[in-house]
Amino acid sequence: MINVEALKRIVGDDWVVTKRDQITGYLADETYLGVLPKPAENVVVVKPANPEEISAILKLANEEKTPVYPRGGGTGLVGAAVPTRDGIVLSLERLDKVIEVDKDNMMIVSEAGVTLEHMLKEVENADLLFPPHPGDEGAQVGGMVACNAGGTRAVKYGVVRSYVKGLEVVLPTGEIVQMGGKLLKNNTGLDLIHLLIDSEGILGVITKATLKLYPKFGATATLVVSFEDRRAAIATVPKILQAGIIPMAIEYTEKSLMEETAVHVNMTWPAKQGKAQLIIIMAETNEDQLYGLCEQLSEICEKNSAVDILMAETTSEQAEILKIRSEVGNALKPKIADALDVTVPPAAIATILDEIDKVSQKYGIFIPVVGHAGDGNLHPNMYWEFEKKGVLKQAKQEIYEAAIQLGGVISGEHGIGKTRLPQFEMCFDPKQRELMLGVKKLFDPNNILSPDSAIC
Amino acid sequence: MINVEALKRIVGDDWVVTKRDQITGYLADETYLGVLPKPAENVVVVKPANPEEISAILKLANEEKTPVYPRGGGTGLVGAAVPTRDGIVLSLERLDKVIEVDKDNMMIVSEAGVTLEHMLKEVENADLLFPPHPGDEGAQVGGMVACNAGGTRAVKYGVVRSYVKGLEVVLPTGEIVQMGGKLLKNNTGLDLIHLLIDSEGILGVITKATLKLYPKFGATATLVVSFEDRRAAIATVPKILQAGIIPMAIEYTEKSLMEETAVHVNMTWPAKQGKAQLIIIMAETNEDQLYGLCEQLSEICEKNSAVDILMAETTSEQAEILKIRSEVGNALKPKIADALDVTVPPAAIATILDEIDKVSQKYGIFIPVVGHAGDGNLHPNMYWEFEKKGVLKQAKQEIYEAAIQLGGVISGEHGIGKTRLPQFEMCFDPKQRELMLGVKKLFDPNNILSPDSAIC
Repeated sequence: MINVEALKRIVGDDWVVTKRDQITGYLADETYLGVLPKPAENVVVVKPANPEEISAILKLANEEKTPVYPRGGGTGLVGAAVPTRDGIVLSLERLDKVIEVDKDNMMIVSEAGVTLEHMLKEVENADLLFPPHPGDEGAQVGGMVACNAGGTRAVKYGVVRSYVKGLEVVLPTGEIVQMGGKLLKNNTGLDLIHLLIDSEGILGVITKATLKLYPKFGATATLVVSFEDRRAAIATVPKILQAGIIPMAIEYTEKSLMEETAVHVNMTWPAKQGKAQLIIIMAETNEDQLYGLCEQLSEICEKNSAVDILMAETTSEQAEILKIRSEVGNALKPKIADALDVTVPPAAIATILDEIDKVSQKYGIFIPVVGHAGDGNLHPNMYWEFEKKGVLKQAKQEIYEAAIQLGGVISGEHGIGKTRLPQFEMCFDPKQRELMLGVKKLFDPNNILSPDSAIC
Repeated sequence: MINVEALKRIVGDDWVVTKRDQITGYLADETYLGVLPKPAENVVVVKPANPEEISAILKLANEEKTPVYPRGGGTGLVGAAVPTRDGIVLSLERLDKVIEVDKDNMMIVSEAGVTLEHMLKEVENADLLFPPHPGDEGAQVGGMVACNAGGTRAVKYGVVRSYVKGLEVVLPTGEIVQMGGKLLKNNTGLDLIHLLIDSEGILGVITKATLKLYPKFGATATLVVSFEDRRAAIATVPKILQAGIIPMAIEYTEKSLMEETAVHVNMTWPAKQGKAQLIIIMAETNEDQLYGLCEQLSEICEKNSAVDILMAETTSEQAEILKIRSEVGNALKPKIADALDVTVPPAAIATILDEIDKVSQKYGIFIPVVGHAGDGNLHPNMYWEFEKKGVLKQAKQEIYEAAIQLGGVISGEHGIGKTRLPQFEMCFDPKQRELMLGVKKLFDPNNILSPDSAIC
């Protein structure tokens, strides 16, 4: 039972939406349709204005044992935000203010519902940089922290976890707590901030985050390096890093995919040679440095059988390449039943690509792959053909097993959510599962927050 | 009661030491004498060879409710390793093997008892780099992870937390678990690795760690920049970072301290000008880059009232400066009752220095300060005079309160241990304390592991 009247008393009548046709946008996220969970029948969307209202909602939900699904930008790919039980979708959209861009401390303090796009603009206006770029700019700050978003540009300074220095969190039991601050070092007590990061909304509702920023780099370039085959492209990655060159991003992609995506967005993919390509984003303090390193980088790529190196320097040329790269998911989407997120030790990427090829050959269905080569994080895209042949689960399982066999994991950045929950047991021994479930019970004794997700 | 015979059956007679005169070295750590806890009367030192023996020891300890104090290099400064209850000191010293330096993945896999010195040598031999340098090279890998060691050189790539990708841990209840691996991205389940980091030995015994390495930088330089006063030195730090220059380390120190330390180690402190000094370590891909940035850096310092800039380029000159810097603690030690570890938002360092000055003036006792200016992390050194006047606790409390007032914390890198436990309540609201204690109880239901430490 959902106590709609009580919810209205907390947030005001206008911010409780019960009519099904007005909440359809809140019943799904960006999860691929082959695995998107079915939403429950009886769902109410609530849009609180502040942590105090969220606290009151959660206290009410505890009294009435009502499931609550916190929702950010809805850009997740594992169904975490989908309300699979009758209950409340708690949208953070009204917590949409950037509170402060602190230039002296190089930190941003932002409410949870601020979109990545909005945040990046504010940071840009302050002449600073938030390096990671987890694809969809509709993602919201709270969700990016709750899911430890990754994406491109994690090679140099890491994923979102590396940037989170402070949090305001409403705990499932309703307490509003402040953690950390504008601090670069903090060894005070058990680190609950790092437990909240990547907790996928099961341990608390993040309402505010303090994130570290970097100085804007003086000069950037984006290179597209083409190779005849996957192995040659991938084998080049450790050579670059071992030479002491640490780009912002080293992306792996395939020319056919990029060309297909370019058509989709009415653009032209500029790199015409080869089949397998690396997109490398270099960011350095000044142009002298940048050119010196790009030259060194080009030499390494040539020595490792690159057949073409294209270097984009102007902002618009670079933006074009990244636009096409970031649209791959959308362009492919109608053809794809599910996209995986396996991650292996970086040096094992060539091997996992071979294993993916084997699966592809076994079932006679091509598996296009994009991914973050510098991080060992790949996205094999599973066409609907797998589902039609009734082998999607099986084929995915084979890729998961290959990744684990190589010392990898089933998710590098998308998380577990609901769609990968069936694999939870293959990822951890019983004791670690028991501890995770124990932590959940400690934070959320009535299991009201995002049930059916992440670990339970 | 400690069951010595059972312990001998687990590890062999030679590895259980009961005679008091043979275990004195295990009853203290590097904590300053003004606050070093008193060890218990009835202590046995056990030296297991592997995780299986540790598991057996912990299972026995649970049966008999015997406290167990895991011990690494004993270089901690907050008494965490001191056995304050009758029980077992569990030394990791025999887990002393570097298992692998993996050049392709740029990772090191090391047993917990390997010293920082040993580890750095192996990394150096593989032509790679482990950037952070938490002072005392007698520190051990397991302890560095358990305490999230910081130190100098955290400005560019962060503290030890940023490097930990995999752990083997023996849980207090005896299970041996494997977490993570050679992975740069991992969003699979709640992150227990990050909960273990900085848990100060209360949640498990770390037996093995997989740490990320970096390519060795092609060129490094160490600059000592002198200023007439504290404020001028400190105010320069954000200017450097905002210009897009990210050194490995930006250390704050005081000339009088460095000269005193140099005498202590029979060396000469090379920077003769000014009173307040920044030690800046620059590490870049090649010499061209390095010189370009050092020039830019020097200009910034000059614009901000630097009175002298000394640049050391040869390995031996640089090593000399760092040797003196790392000996400050030892040189001062006999005069010091306790050293603090307050951390504030980086831009508030000048203000916390002023606050420290006020405390110094109030009691009429000079407080020398060193610290990691780039990180907002300062070490005010409290002379014995404070203790003799009976105002040590009061003066420390005033500095703690000033730090918290500025949005800071009482510990940036040393941790809470036993000596800062009285301040636990001022650091967290009751709910966060309850959650931390709940996590402890979940991992260690009988509270056998490092009681009286960190949070409880």
